[in-house]
Amino acid sequence: MSYEPTPQDKFSFGLWTVGWLGRDPFGDATRTALDPVDAVRRLSELGAYGITFHDDDLIPFTTPEGEREAHVKRFRQALDATGMSVPMATTNLFTHPVFKDGAFTANDRDVRRYALRKTMRNIDLAAELGAETYVAWGGREGAESGAAKDVRAALDRMKEAFDLLAEYVTEQGYGLRFAIEPKPNEPRGDILLPTVGHALAFIERLERPELFGVNPEVGHEQMAGLNFPHGIAQALWSGKLFHLDLNGQNGIKYDQDLRFGAGDLRAAFWTVDLLERAGYEGPRHFDFKPPRTEDYEGVWASAAGCMRNYLILRERAAAFRADPAVQEALRASRLDELELTTLDEGETPAALLADRSAFEDFDVEAAAARGMAFERLDQLAMDHLLGV
Amino acid sequence: MSYEPTPQDKFSFGLWTVGWLGRDPFGDATRTALDPVDAVRRLSELGAYGITFHDDDLIPFTTPEGEREAHVKRFRQALDATGMSVPMATTNLFTHPVFKDGAFTANDRDVRRYALRKTMRNIDLAAELGAETYVAWGGREGAESGAAKDVRAALDRMKEAFDLLAEYVTEQGYGLRFAIEPKPNEPRGDILLPTVGHALAFIERLERPELFGVNPEVGHEQMAGLNFPHGIAQALWSGKLFHLDLNGQNGIKYDQDLRFGAGDLRAAFWTVDLLERAGYEGPRHFDFKPPRTEDYEGVWASAAGCMRNYLILRERAAAFRADPAVQEALRASRLDELELTTLDEGETPAALLADRSAFEDFDVEAAAARGMAFERLDQLAMDHLLGV
Amino acid sequence: MSYEPTPQDKFSFGLWTVGWLGRDPFGDATRTALDPVDAVRRLSELGAYGITFHDDDLIPFTTPEGEREAHVKRFRQALDATGMSVPMATTNLFTHPVFKDGAFTANDRDVRRYALRKTMRNIDLAAELGAETYVAWGGREGAESGAAKDVRAALDRMKEAFDLLAEYVTEQGYGLRFAIEPKPNEPRGDILLPTVGHALAFIERLERPELFGVNPEVGHEQMAGLNFPHGIAQALWSGKLFHLDLNGQNGIKYDQDLRFGAGDLRAAFWTVDLLERAGYEGPRHFDFKPPRTEDYEGVWASAAGCMRNYLILRERAAAFRADPAVQEALRASRLDELELTTLDEGETPAALLADRSAFEDFDVEAAAARGMAFERLDQLAMDHLLGV
Amino acid sequence: MSYEPTPQDKFSFGLWTVGWLGRDPFGDATRTALDPVDAVRRLSELGAYGITFHDDDLIPFTTPEGEREAHVKRFRQALDATGMSVPMATTNLFTHPVFKDGAFTANDRDVRRYALRKTMRNIDLAAELGAETYVAWGGREGAESGAAKDVRAALDRMKEAFDLLAEYVTEQGYGLRFAIEPKPNEPRGDILLPTVGHALAFIERLERPELFGVNPEVGHEQMAGLNFPHGIAQALWSGKLFHLDLNGQNGIKYDQDLRFGAGDLRAAFWTVDLLERAGYEGPRHFDFKPPRTEDYEGVWASAAGCMRNYLILRERAAAFRADPAVQEALRASRLDELELTTLDEGETPAALLADRSAFEDFDVEAAAARGMAFERLDQLAMDHLLGV
Repeated sequence: MSYEPTPQDKFSFGLWTVGWLGRDPFGDATRTALDPVDAVRRLSELGAYGITFHDDDLIPFTTPEGEREAHVKRFRQALDATGMSVPMATTNLFTHPVFKDGAFTANDRDVRRYALRKTMRNIDLAAELGAETYVAWGGREGAESGAAKDVRAALDRMKEAFDLLAEYVTEQGYGLRFAIEPKPNEPRGDILLPTVGHALAFIERLERPELFGVNPEVGHEQMAGLNFPHGIAQALWSGKLFHLDLNGQNGIKYDQDLRFGAGDLRAAFWTVDLLERAGYEGPRHFDFKPPRTEDYEGVWASAAGCMRNYLILRERAAAFRADPAVQEALRASRLDELELTTLDEGETPAALLADRSAFEDFDVEAAAARGMAFERLDQLAMDHLLGV
Repeated sequence: MSYEPTPQDKFSFGLWTVGWLGRDPFGDATRTALDPVDAVRRLSELGAYGITFHDDDLIPFTTPEGEREAHVKRFRQALDATGMSVPMATTNLFTHPVFKDGAFTANDRDVRRYALRKTMRNIDLAAELGAETYVAWGGREGAESGAAKDVRAALDRMKEAFDLLAEYVTEQGYGLRFAIEPKPNEPRGDILLPTVGHALAFIERLERPELFGVNPEVGHEQMAGLNFPHGIAQALWSGKLFHLDLNGQNGIKYDQDLRFGAGDLRAAFWTVDLLERAGYEGPRHFDFKPPRTEDYEGVWASAAGCMRNYLILRERAAAFRADPAVQEALRASRLDELELTTLDEGETPAALLADRSAFEDFDVEAAAARGMAFERLDQLAMDHLLGV
Repeated sequence: MSYEPTPQDKFSFGLWTVGWLGRDPFGDATRTALDPVDAVRRLSELGAYGITFHDDDLIPFTTPEGEREAHVKRFRQALDATGMSVPMATTNLFTHPVFKDGAFTANDRDVRRYALRKTMRNIDLAAELGAETYVAWGGREGAESGAAKDVRAALDRMKEAFDLLAEYVTEQGYGLRFAIEPKPNEPRGDILLPTVGHALAFIERLERPELFGVNPEVGHEQMAGLNFPHGIAQALWSGKLFHLDLNGQNGIKYDQDLRFGAGDLRAAFWTVDLLERAGYEGPRHFDFKPPRTEDYEGVWASAAGCMRNYLILRERAAAFRADPAVQEALRASRLDELELTTLDEGETPAALLADRSAFEDFDVEAAAARGMAFERLDQLAMDHLLGV
Repeated sequence: MSYEPTPQDKFSFGLWTVGWLGRDPFGDATRTALDPVDAVRRLSELGAYGITFHDDDLIPFTTPEGEREAHVKRFRQALDATGMSVPMATTNLFTHPVFKDGAFTANDRDVRRYALRKTMRNIDLAAELGAETYVAWGGREGAESGAAKDVRAALDRMKEAFDLLAEYVTEQGYGLRFAIEPKPNEPRGDILLPTVGHALAFIERLERPELFGVNPEVGHEQMAGLNFPHGIAQALWSGKLFHLDLNGQNGIKYDQDLRFGAGDLRAAFWTVDLLERAGYEGPRHFDFKPPRTEDYEGVWASAAGCMRNYLILRERAAAFRADPAVQEALRASRLDELELTTLDEGETPAALLADRSAFEDFDVEAAAARGMAFERLDQLAMDHLLGV
């Protein structure tokens, strides 16, 4: 197989990924700036179909109002020339020092209002460029010490912000949906809505929950030691997987943003398996940082690797599911039985209580002695993953 | 101050805590069995007001049906004699090998039905003993390998189980509410509903969400590196902190179940501060394991330590909040401003857009230059915690 | 390829691995006891060459002195019948409650003396059975709280114990070498000599350091978030990789003891690559626990999987190293330059200072601009790992 | 008590700590540059006795050769004016992109030679300013992917570098000793010599091991989930605690560099207890980063907090050790017995084997039944820590 990506694969990249200059907490930039136009062109050549951005990626923060349109125009021309789309956009509410204590939940009210306005401005641009999803990563919404943030008040402010934004896109008829991106920590000691679960729960308290879903990132869940495929499975089950960020991470440590396929390879396999089986139709969006050891040749190799690895894993997952030996092993592990309802149709508590076979006559020891045959099943998965 | 607990402090303990025999993955029991009657008596003497149990803690798993009542009777007599209450009960769905692949989400349908019946039986007893909360810890609902559990199907089964149980307690008029207890892993490689957030989100998809809340455990959230006070703050914000398990944990590792106050002491301080400020009225329930190095004298010292530490921290937190210097520091850090709504009353998106002071005329650099004064505030907290 | 193990592959297993009954901190045994004789026979059939044991695995703790020989005899007969060897043995100094505070570093002096005697007795047996390595895992040498163990005194006691044991094997002419096995925590809150590094350092303070090396276990290092291949590389560099324990672990959490190849697959690949390149000649020893979901069919599937995965990875690593494209990529990443000494032969500090090309005339910016081409190299590794 | 630091307390700070501008992986600087002269003056006023620096902290990287002395002169004048000393200095081998793949172990030989020269130059300055310790943190010595670094070759290069530097300071008669600073990861995916243990072990393979010790940092060990007091206890036991970096960290995550006392408070207490009991005479050096939420008022509050917290904890630890109830509790936990040698003086293996009381007549069950009384002891520690 060739593993050559095409637009039909729906691969997208953030401008800030291939455009990351390599500045880290202990080191200066190792690469020179990348023109967004070049990013569009190059990613298109590599086989991507879409590109995404924070407002400040496209239009530098200090750009005078009168020069904004020039930046947008050049970008739009590059999109038109390549056929690339903008499926998603988002706001940078974390780089400028004004956001050092957060944006929607900053203690300073004027910062909160400014953050809302900065977001609304970029929502306008996102809508104009045809984006369907607007991502919100509240990377600075959090604290390093216990009294610095009253979390309940902060969640009130967070709800207020999202309710206002939902009202705005509704009034404007933008057709955008929001995807909240959780992260447990870094750059704040603890960030609010730290996992997919917390974000899903929060959404249910909003005024227009139907406009909100989540944007889980592989590494962010893994930074909390959580199983990424499990997390997106719950998001899918809840009807809330609106977007996602694919990358790689080596366990619980600083945010690595490795290319997809690096880091936990088995989790990557099960992630692709789940997305494909679930019929997920959104973009396969890569949010990674090419290591600062790389020059631009390395940057493009890294970007190409993200897509290549997805395609390899997609092929392997499909072969796994198609293999009759696997299907038999799944039955031996009673995955088919998990699909069955526990209760008979219409069975009431009383009916369950009346079923002696369920309890009084249930042979606990015999049931306990049944092996689950998971090791054989997992070895088959490993064989398929490794292409044996 | 004396730090002597009284029933008004609402301290409760699980039978399985002081009754833990010290069996761990690498070692045999170091203590002999504790009679539940002795546990009631001794905890009452130490100042606790309540005791909680798994069905099998009170009535050993293999007890013939005809002998159940004798166990209950002795226990009830001990409760009556001491005035101890049973604020909560729960089901053991993890010790017997029949639950090796889970209970409500076991692949085997008959195991799932058996688990429901085992739970219903103990709900009857919980209601009879006056419990108000029924905790559900799905410690075996999970997997070690990727294909062994279809998470979406498993969540369907989990929902089915909780809907059935809610129907049951409603029909029976029990007045019990359920509290789901999250945990990220151990004893399974990954457990479903791994954090407070995931459980809160799941509850919203149940048929009777009003009957369900969460039972967060200090160590369980900390095993995922999460901030415990932040987690229960979101639960409180969601109106869902129905119960909680206080203990200690030293970071991300195996489940330690240290006495409350051991482990992360600052997190314990902020936890008590939050519970007291929020007017949380439920039991202060300790779910800890006296280390297996201890004999029974050590067990009771450990139990007493849980309560003592809560009382010390309660005093310190109250002094912190009452200190005028702290109140001034909170204002200097603009915590009062976080309480203000971001929007004016009735402010629409259009009105916000029209407010030039929020954006066009906002002096970003000046706002960015304001210090948050969090270090001074946190040092005051530390001084109060340490009683300086 | 067939991936069928043969004795030449030098695969060995602990009796306690396939013999693990599935007892965990929250659950009872799910499997019935396995006769050591059956373990020998079955492992031999699967292609292993060796078996290892703790004293109590082979001869139950409570066995009267007079019955010990009968156990040994049956075992020796099974070894003879199958041709299996005993390359390593070790002492169980953690299961019995007497070791609840440690063995060589227990606060109780009589426990320390007893632990030494228990070890000496099994060293005799190990020597008799032809073992070359004697592993020492001090799983209970540690503490849960700060004052409970004076670490410097404990290290004195640990040194005293190992010096005595070294004197003993020397006097007896046993030809055994010791391998110390580090682990960061579990079952103690913190264990002494928590990583490969700490054990290597400790060895240097012993009286006969030449008799001591390390026995790193994949999961133990990964429980501290450490890179396992890096750890064993330092052990190899120090001439101290006397033995090792291969298994699988999913990051920082409780000790999972998954089969080799499960958990961090990339780390497994680099581990095999390193062992094979370094010409490591010791046994490939598996120290895993077949999940308690499995019956004995699953146990043997899991054991077979350990060996199969090693063979697959060995093949892939060899192909990686043999691939001309990889060799070119390694050169592009200047791995060949890392092999060169930094100094010229005999170069003194003065000579280095005199070399203006090293500093005064060194073009820092030009050097900084060179890409390292690591992403391309790692993608080639991934392609080989996945057999693309 | 006043908790006012004086020079006798030997508190020192890095120039880069109070001088950190708040640039993090997701955000720009929030503070303007701090003149080293102001840092000296202000820290002196706060009660510190010493200041430390990386070469580039004092003399910006791009400073022309001819202007170096002007920087040094101003600094020396500030030292003279305040009486502040320079107990330690170190090299910045991580900020400039030339070090993106490491310094002493960079794949590029010319980078390695340049790193040596940069270090030698600053060693000259360190000696000139009277420093006794030269710290070496190899923050970029590591890799993100498996083939990018041959660890054994890299350790050869690391050894070569340190041997050369030791030769240099010996030849120059500088009287400096080196302290190697371990860290597990960040900014590299995995860093060589990741823990105190690995560094201690490495030192033993150097040509002049007596010139080398370790510089453990609280947060660095805690990023691997390791017990910091245990780590420095092993360093002390090995005679290798040459220097240390005190700060705070909330468990396994990105490097937080909180002020000392923040993060794990119990670990801070046991750290101070150990340093004071062990008679550690080196500087109490703080290597922290005032959070970027702070302005300079917050910076100085944070620096003052580091010292204040040390003094509070020193007082509490002293009271703990002086308390007769604690001394009795230590005996009840048999800490005194841990001080006794396990063997009688001159006891041989044969003699131990002949002692029937040690084994044949040892009452294992009786010994196992003894409680260790650690919970009571730890509660006393907590009471003292909290000043109850």
